[in-house]
Amino acid sequence: MRRLSIRNLHVSLVAGTIAVIMTFQTTPVVAQHLTMDAITIERSTILTQPGVFGVVTMFKLRPEWNKMSATERMGSAAEVAKLIEKHKDNVLVDLYLTRGLKTNSDFFIRINAYDLAKAQTFMREFRSTTIGKNTDVSDTLVGVTKPLNYITKEKSPNLNASLSAATYDGDAPRYAIVIPVKKSAAWWTLPFEQRLKEMETHAVSTLPYMTNVKRKLYHSTGLDDIDFITYFETNDLLAFHNLMTSLASIPENNYHVRWGDPTTLGSILSPEKVIKALSE
Amino acid sequence: MRRLSIRNLHVSLVAGTIAVIMTFQTTPVVAQHLTMDAITIERSTILTQPGVFGVVTMFKLRPEWNKMSATERMGSAAEVAKLIEKHKDNVLVDLYLTRGLKTNSDFFIRINAYDLAKAQTFMREFRSTTIGKNTDVSDTLVGVTKPLNYITKEKSPNLNASLSAATYDGDAPRYAIVIPVKKSAAWWTLPFEQRLKEMETHAVSTLPYMTNVKRKLYHSTGLDDIDFITYFETNDLLAFHNLMTSLASIPENNYHVRWGDPTTLGSILSPEKVIKALSE
Amino acid sequence: MRRLSIRNLHVSLVAGTIAVIMTFQTTPVVAQHLTMDAITIERSTILTQPGVFGVVTMFKLRPEWNKMSATERMGSAAEVAKLIEKHKDNVLVDLYLTRGLKTNSDFFIRINAYDLAKAQTFMREFRSTTIGKNTDVSDTLVGVTKPLNYITKEKSPNLNASLSAATYDGDAPRYAIVIPVKKSAAWWTLPFEQRLKEMETHAVSTLPYMTNVKRKLYHSTGLDDIDFITYFETNDLLAFHNLMTSLASIPENNYHVRWGDPTTLGSILSPEKVIKALSE
Amino acid sequence: MRRLSIRNLHVSLVAGTIAVIMTFQTTPVVAQHLTMDAITIERSTILTQPGVFGVVTMFKLRPEWNKMSATERMGSAAEVAKLIEKHKDNVLVDLYLTRGLKTNSDFFIRINAYDLAKAQTFMREFRSTTIGKNTDVSDTLVGVTKPLNYITKEKSPNLNASLSAATYDGDAPRYAIVIPVKKSAAWWTLPFEQRLKEMETHAVSTLPYMTNVKRKLYHSTGLDDIDFITYFETNDLLAFHNLMTSLASIPENNYHVRWGDPTTLGSILSPEKVIKALSE
Amino acid sequence: MRRLSIRNLHVSLVAGTIAVIMTFQTTPVVAQHLTMDAITIERSTILTQPGVFGVVTMFKLRPEWNKMSATERMGSAAEVAKLIEKHKDNVLVDLYLTRGLKTNSDFFIRINAYDLAKAQTFMREFRSTTIGKNTDVSDTLVGVTKPLNYITKEKSPNLNASLSAATYDGDAPRYAIVIPVKKSAAWWTLPFEQRLKEMETHAVSTLPYMTNVKRKLYHSTGLDDIDFITYFETNDLLAFHNLMTSLASIPENNYHVRWGDPTTLGSILSPEKVIKALSE
Repeated sequence: MRRLSIRNLHVSLVAGTIAVIMTFQTTPVVAQHLTMDAITIERSTILTQPGVFGVVTMFKLRPEWNKMSATERMGSAAEVAKLIEKHKDNVLVDLYLTRGLKTNSDFFIRINAYDLAKAQTFMREFRSTTIGKNTDVSDTLVGVTKPLNYITKEKSPNLNASLSAATYDGDAPRYAIVIPVKKSAAWWTLPFEQRLKEMETHAVSTLPYMTNVKRKLYHSTGLDDIDFITYFETNDLLAFHNLMTSLASIPENNYHVRWGDPTTLGSILSPEKVIKALSE
Repeated sequence: MRRLSIRNLHVSLVAGTIAVIMTFQTTPVVAQHLTMDAITIERSTILTQPGVFGVVTMFKLRPEWNKMSATERMGSAAEVAKLIEKHKDNVLVDLYLTRGLKTNSDFFIRINAYDLAKAQTFMREFRSTTIGKNTDVSDTLVGVTKPLNYITKEKSPNLNASLSAATYDGDAPRYAIVIPVKKSAAWWTLPFEQRLKEMETHAVSTLPYMTNVKRKLYHSTGLDDIDFITYFETNDLLAFHNLMTSLASIPENNYHVRWGDPTTLGSILSPEKVIKALSE
Repeated sequence: MRRLSIRNLHVSLVAGTIAVIMTFQTTPVVAQHLTMDAITIERSTILTQPGVFGVVTMFKLRPEWNKMSATERMGSAAEVAKLIEKHKDNVLVDLYLTRGLKTNSDFFIRINAYDLAKAQTFMREFRSTTIGKNTDVSDTLVGVTKPLNYITKEKSPNLNASLSAATYDGDAPRYAIVIPVKKSAAWWTLPFEQRLKEMETHAVSTLPYMTNVKRKLYHSTGLDDIDFITYFETNDLLAFHNLMTSLASIPENNYHVRWGDPTTLGSILSPEKVIKALSE
Repeated sequence: MRRLSIRNLHVSLVAGTIAVIMTFQTTPVVAQHLTMDAITIERSTILTQPGVFGVVTMFKLRPEWNKMSATERMGSAAEVAKLIEKHKDNVLVDLYLTRGLKTNSDFFIRINAYDLAKAQTFMREFRSTTIGKNTDVSDTLVGVTKPLNYITKEKSPNLNASLSAATYDGDAPRYAIVIPVKKSAAWWTLPFEQRLKEMETHAVSTLPYMTNVKRKLYHSTGLDDIDFITYFETNDLLAFHNLMTSLASIPENNYHVRWGDPTTLGSILSPEKVIKALSE
Repeated sequence: MRRLSIRNLHVSLVAGTIAVIMTFQTTPVVAQHLTMDAITIERSTILTQPGVFGVVTMFKLRPEWNKMSATERMGSAAEVAKLIEKHKDNVLVDLYLTRGLKTNSDFFIRINAYDLAKAQTFMREFRSTTIGKNTDVSDTLVGVTKPLNYITKEKSPNLNASLSAATYDGDAPRYAIVIPVKKSAAWWTLPFEQRLKEMETHAVSTLPYMTNVKRKLYHSTGLDDIDFITYFETNDLLAFHNLMTSLASIPENNYHVRWGDPTTLGSILSPEKVIKALSE
């Protein structure tokens, strides 16, 4: 009641602004997850739901890692596997190998969790494992999944149908790419209708590549110094390159304050394989 | 007398500029705190008064911390508790856990003090504790609280009333977010009336979220390389994200030279719990 | 079939954008290399084909390198030679000496490979050699070769013929220069015809120098935080300097977001000579 | 004679430029100090003269400092006192405590000297003291004092009189603030008359605060990567904050390329007290 | 023959661009030095010739330097003298002391050489001396001297005559200043006639200071991430400051992307004196 009366008061003052606020207030169901303690994490479910926090952390091994015995290093794989098992009802954990492809990291971890505090706890305990103690964190990205904002059934029915129909049918992806995005004040202060138009062009540009490239979006405004974490999986890096060139060529690109910086390209491997590759 | 005569001289030269100066000169009471030595710090009082200095310091543990025994690390919690007790008549001390959520810090400390020198003394002594000696400072923000400048009873009565009426009624906040802000020369050289108009739009945008998000403002121009420290507490990170997206969408955002960079998101915990979490 | 139907749907929505997409989709042969396992690497072949990944990694020796015995350091040359031999069916490896000419590196490695994962494996194993363990990576650039995009036989026949006719006839190059390039959103959102016109001017500017300067191009959009890796070899640094000054003076330069930063200038030497030079 | 004839030649070519040059050439007396060896440094004199070099150096203690015994650390105070005494005829030395208020420094030193080489010699010898060997330099600012350029008796008599009349009458300042300034090409290429007008507005904005804030200016163009070192002392940080907000609100602020970055806020203490505070 | 025919082909396509290229192609004599092995380096000759490479390297001592005995440190002076003697037919070597005046370096070395590879070899061997092993390189600038481009006898006869007539007549310079310069795309894409006009204004601004300030120019486009290394020597830092302020005030300054960053100010001393000053 009180909140409504506050709103009414100001609708008369700055009606356009309120309209924007209303748009963002329409996701109340999501918040319920935040306080639920006993959710079992199911991969295919958590990766498609709104209201899920994503934490992507890049790690770089310190030179000390090389001074340990190979046995100790290899033993870290079992230690990490045990930690993942311990937290399996709280967080979904994925590892990726970046050594050889990136300057500032050797591997990265992506956590999906309904409760951000649980992701934090996992990451904190990982830092106390043998490999965790021998790494520096080089980047951390925090975001949350949300329902579609632009290309919905209501706002853009044809494109929504096309996006729903276009599914990945390539080989199992061997590569993941993480690209943080920040958009300019000029973007955010555009009328919603104009942003919708630009996002339709964006969606059209991505459609031809959806059979070769998987993608996932986390929203970060206010939670981090970016607006989005864009996450991709592919086995066809040329198709992915062409997708990104295509997105560079549409007007939305004029509104990018940050697009990458860093772009992180890594190999999709099991946690055990990532750590063993770094232990050889 | 002398100061008045100087002013009169120049009112004739650059009257508009003087008008701005007069605005800022109307907070003389505040300065009295600066030289008072025997003030007892009372949390709910100091957190609502003008003329209070805020120092927010981000800390990152060095690898050496992990080489100490767990007992030594755990012992640091009592040492810090004792230091806080020693300074309890000089400074209000809050700790926050960021490990796992941020790249450049593991925890941060917020000091509130009537006398900045006393905040400096506490921070200096903290640096000589066991945990303090094993950390690097990754960021320091200094500011001071001031009376409302724009949305006052006189200048914007309706909004002032709404802001006063809207109080937090969510669960105890588990998260704090610190976002430094710097505004452009284009902002500061706007006529006051225009800045007031933009801040009214700002206030309207924040109102729907004041039941879910607490906020506090420190002014930093000249004391630090930013204009404001904005500090938030919430238990609903989605609501906070929506608030920040809402603020990104109003014209004020065009005047941000820096908004975040870094945004620091941490968990609100007692000092003991923060240090123990970092000692496990 | 399905992909075609998706495309048709959107051609009606945003025809111009689709036109751009089609352009990039016309290189399907290239992708075949990606899954072939038993290709023998032949230098003159791999360096002229499209669909070849390039990874350029800059390395800086840590002070510990100087604390090893000269014998150990010298022994690293044989160890690296053995590693290159082991991977000779997977990757083409070139080393360059930058110590004395660059701040952030002492040498760099360029890998050419049909499969990026194989380049990653080589680089990962190099990091475990004696010299690899004593270096920090200061930069990594990833790209892929593609067929000509602008100055083709069809789009610009005269210039294409001139480029084909102009071959290097200088002394064996002693120097290589690596210059990463990122172009602005303003560039990428230009109509293709306009970009073609600018690239014709670019090609004309380079022609007089093609007898003195060799060049090679990798495309990086989406794979890295740049759009291109431009790689040059020359024995006439003044001619190269004049070439770059000439390219600075044409309109294309207005679209550079990044051109260098870093420019890496190194000496072309055998892997053995590079490592021995760093071991003296 | 020769110099005059060169000038005459070019007055006919670019008269406006020459006019600017003439302005700067009118401070010949100053240079005489540069070669004088036996000047006794007198604080109140050197701090008010033109032609005096200022070197401001920020220092950060390395972790090794904490591993020394408290006795050794405390002994450093006497060692530094002795060094200051040794150089007392060459340089004026001030120390300031920043630990607890700044990220990148624990203390800073300001040197005033008629001969820059003598300031360099002191700073070099300081680096060989016990505390000097345990610090990293995090910033160095070099400048020189000059006669008034804009608000002179001739160019702006009323404001000049006001500035001369307004003297500090607050408590002994406990805080110093150092703010480096760089102005844009747009500023420097303004006609002198326009810059004079903007600086008059600047002067008017500062006048009300001159009873609470002391200030001093060093010119750095060409000697360092900034144009000015602005140095302030105050006991009223709110007044200082209001002064800086006032200066942010005038047109001159549009010409700032750098204003701070870093802003350094420290406590004014004797050298002995600064080092002892860092030794506890 | 072939080169000419290529040119003719394209003159018809983009005549204006070719005109610029021709300008830069008119320095063929210079390249001859590049392959000559047995040139004796003569200071006054090499410092005035075109086609000479300049490498300026900034060095910062690591803390380990202080842990060596004073004898070892002092012994480094003889070791460096011997190295300079060994390479005296290949490179001209100058050292400068920056400790106390700069943050990121303690000293710098300027090499002049007809063959860049020889400069690289000297710098590489320097890195293996006692002092070289205890330093980090903080910056490296590479450039090459060229004949005058703008203020030539043909293009600007009066100014050329004035520049030739104006010679340094001050005391032996005690200070050197190195300022890297990068100019914008807007500059390079100006018509040559306009750039000539701006450089005439530049030359006029410098003339009054040529009796007090020596200067030397290296071109770096393509060889490094800058366009020019500007190098100055003076004994009158106020005159130098006024010169730089004068150059800040002409339209050319609008085209600076980078002017300094870092500006490096050091004392001109013999190699022995530089190393001994750092060994005390």
